[in-house]
Amino acid sequence: MSGADTTAEAVRDAVARAAAAAPAAARATEAERAGWLRAIADDLDAARDALVPLAARETGLAVSRLSGEVARTTGQLRLFADAIEEGGHLEVVVDHADPSSAPPRPDLRRMLIPLGPVAVYAASNFPFAFSVAGGDTASALAVGCPVVVKAHPGHAGTSRATAAIVAGALRRAGAPDGAFALVEGFDAGLALVDAAPVRAAAFTGSLGGGRALADRAAARDEPIPFFGELGSLNPVVVTPRADAARGAELAAGLAASYTLGAGQFCTKPGLVLVPAGSALERELPGQVPGGTAAMLTGSIAEGFVTGARRLAGIPGVEELIAPTVAGAAALLAVDAPDFAASADDLTAEVFGPATLLVRYRSAEERDLAVAALPGSLTATLHAEPEDEVDALVDLLAARAGRLLFAGWPTGVAVAWAQHHGGPWPATTSQHTSVGVTAMRRFQRPIAYQDAPEEILPAPLRDGWSGPRRVDGRLRA
Amino acid sequence: MSGADTTAEAVRDAVARAAAAAPAAARATEAERAGWLRAIADDLDAARDALVPLAARETGLAVSRLSGEVARTTGQLRLFADAIEEGGHLEVVVDHADPSSAPPRPDLRRMLIPLGPVAVYAASNFPFAFSVAGGDTASALAVGCPVVVKAHPGHAGTSRATAAIVAGALRRAGAPDGAFALVEGFDAGLALVDAAPVRAAAFTGSLGGGRALADRAAARDEPIPFFGELGSLNPVVVTPRADAARGAELAAGLAASYTLGAGQFCTKPGLVLVPAGSALERELPGQVPGGTAAMLTGSIAEGFVTGARRLAGIPGVEELIAPTVAGAAALLAVDAPDFAASADDLTAEVFGPATLLVRYRSAEERDLAVAALPGSLTATLHAEPEDEVDALVDLLAARAGRLLFAGWPTGVAVAWAQHHGGPWPATTSQHTSVGVTAMRRFQRPIAYQDAPEEILPAPLRDGWSGPRRVDGRLRA
Repeated sequence: MSGADTTAEAVRDAVARAAAAAPAAARATEAERAGWLRAIADDLDAARDALVPLAARETGLAVSRLSGEVARTTGQLRLFADAIEEGGHLEVVVDHADPSSAPPRPDLRRMLIPLGPVAVYAASNFPFAFSVAGGDTASALAVGCPVVVKAHPGHAGTSRATAAIVAGALRRAGAPDGAFALVEGFDAGLALVDAAPVRAAAFTGSLGGGRALADRAAARDEPIPFFGELGSLNPVVVTPRADAARGAELAAGLAASYTLGAGQFCTKPGLVLVPAGSALERELPGQVPGGTAAMLTGSIAEGFVTGARRLAGIPGVEELIAPTVAGAAALLAVDAPDFAASADDLTAEVFGPATLLVRYRSAEERDLAVAALPGSLTATLHAEPEDEVDALVDLLAARAGRLLFAGWPTGVAVAWAQHHGGPWPATTSQHTSVGVTAMRRFQRPIAYQDAPEEILPAPLRDGWSGPRRVDGRLRA
Repeated sequence: MSGADTTAEAVRDAVARAAAAAPAAARATEAERAGWLRAIADDLDAARDALVPLAARETGLAVSRLSGEVARTTGQLRLFADAIEEGGHLEVVVDHADPSSAPPRPDLRRMLIPLGPVAVYAASNFPFAFSVAGGDTASALAVGCPVVVKAHPGHAGTSRATAAIVAGALRRAGAPDGAFALVEGFDAGLALVDAAPVRAAAFTGSLGGGRALADRAAARDEPIPFFGELGSLNPVVVTPRADAARGAELAAGLAASYTLGAGQFCTKPGLVLVPAGSALERELPGQVPGGTAAMLTGSIAEGFVTGARRLAGIPGVEELIAPTVAGAAALLAVDAPDFAASADDLTAEVFGPATLLVRYRSAEERDLAVAALPGSLTATLHAEPEDEVDALVDLLAARAGRLLFAGWPTGVAVAWAQHHGGPWPATTSQHTSVGVTAMRRFQRPIAYQDAPEEILPAPLRDGWSGPRRVDGRLRA
């Protein structure tokens, strides 16, 4: 435990304050909560020139990338503000009484309400967008859940500075005391997921750390949902026709995607199925940037070197670009039959700028390899219009949350239609952590039966103007 | 293991067949799946006169109740069929490409797809509506998930007869082989939740059994969601004004509700907060039916007697009607301060015809008692228009999934707006197990990015006629 670590007592206090704030946060109108989110966004934008250099120093990430990330973060907060003002996130359903049905049906009105205090575990690789004021925090505050963030030690100073801005903005915008807090340290993170008043946890990080927290969340006296994003291979499949038509272009795209930000993206393409003897493989080594990039933390740098060397030592794996030192790109290749023999070892994520080409000699070899892949956030297909890909798309869809066609998975648009999640171990849940529907993670339904009008929450009253389903019919 | 128990090998086989059926079940159109559900409903209705006496013999439940339950079950299947034909359950979201945004936004299209094979654990107390062809099975088949049901031993014959009907109807309606199977026995139930191809489990039963299965689901190499309904106290609060205005009527309503079906409902009111010296308490003993009713199984009967006697032995508890034998109603009462001293013991569910009156002398005593209640499926308030109840409703809303006003919680309408779920231990999830939105448990999102039109599933194409959100705007 370092000097900056939050004590167990201080964690308890933060959680108790969050629990005390929960009723007021839940009662706040959507317009009020939209005001909280916009205040945070405005204050973060105003502080960008101070925050970005601090984050750059702590993470080694480029200033331009970090500036863009602040914009993404504040855009995300404003998108959630707009969304809750519309009201669709409440999923309002009204069934008027039907005395003629057998048995007679009462008046039933259903909406989503906040779960209560949410624990957010910040990510190493996005010091803004998946951290203190990131998507998890925005999602939880948007629906009326107080938030206690566990800072990532890789950017502790940025986290503290951001937390001060969030707290100040919330105060100014009239949010209840206790609606937001920051804690630091490994033990504080464990205490947080164990704390009885915490009603849900959101995590972005490693499979090992995420699994340990998920297990604790499930083992509580009162288990809570754990929304973890734990690691992803993000396979790419290139058909022979696509390779023939644009192998060099694909090589350039792949090189840029898997080395972007030193490969420290949850959507980094970590495995690429290519036809044996592909133009892509010929062209790729020449496209991979030389030199080294700083990695986020010392342990991430060590983990990368160890992981890339482990891959290189598996029987049949060739080093096209040797995994020498942290932050320098590595490129490996293996024939599909050798891949099949060691699929479990070869599909463990290596966090950093490494990717593995898997060379197939037939559609059968290719599909067998796809069938051996674990769940991922994304799967990408590069094909030509003449390719018959229906069965292949089905195979990929069974293993991923987002299917890309003719693109690269790095880059995750914050949008209504986004899905950032996937079968285990990509995520632990049936919900996204990016995009407007990420809010659904922190809500639960409640139904009012035969309630007097004056007791009903405003969205359940007959005069409400938001979108809802009434007597079975959807009304926009 | 009894002779009827499914062997481990047969469980593996059923799960393997379900996994093999999953792609075809997922590919089936909504119209085709609606046909499966309607075929099951038609065949169950046709077999009602054979099924009901069998169930009555096995469970001791009344023929009239069981006939109604078959109608509820087939109505539920048909409601899901109608719902999927509309298409709202797919939650389609389309964001067209926006090259002008920074960074440029790709074309993104999101919908929900089936999880894969689902394990359903049938309930003791609803041999039709929460069993082989009940809400869980209907929800899973509706969205394209194959189902393996673990029969409840309390109605094994009914389960087998129902399973034969379901299998036959699915075959006739063109569902893929393996889309449905029945297994029996305690060990088969464990093997089912452990089986790798199973992607989710749904359970209705006891806290102990449900927790054990939930823990196994969470401890798998690949954890799966466990949708459990584990037990519920269903508190009722009566204000002094309501008691003064209609205490005798409330006594009659409560007596009928907590003894209905020998109290074997998950929504049985198990705890009633009444003003000290209430008319309700005076009138209630005279309204409680005498005699005994058969209980579902020997172990449930034993559990009831043990549980009711345990309650009666807690300091301060008075026996208004002594908990003598299984199936005979018990009525207990305790003053709020004594309740507060033993709240944990007094709030453990007793499955069967027992309820506990908690007498309060002030709003403070009442609210303290409410604050000590565990999560429930329902909470009921009997108040008069002059009562100030906003804070009390908030307290109840924090502890329940359905709030009833001037009614009784037994009776759960199958409707769009229904929510049958609640904070732990009522259910383990943020989803309902009754009503149209119960389908959401067995779906996950997938997003298509920049996909060619011919690759997109029909609901994601521009011409689709169902409800969806396009470029941020909801369209009914």
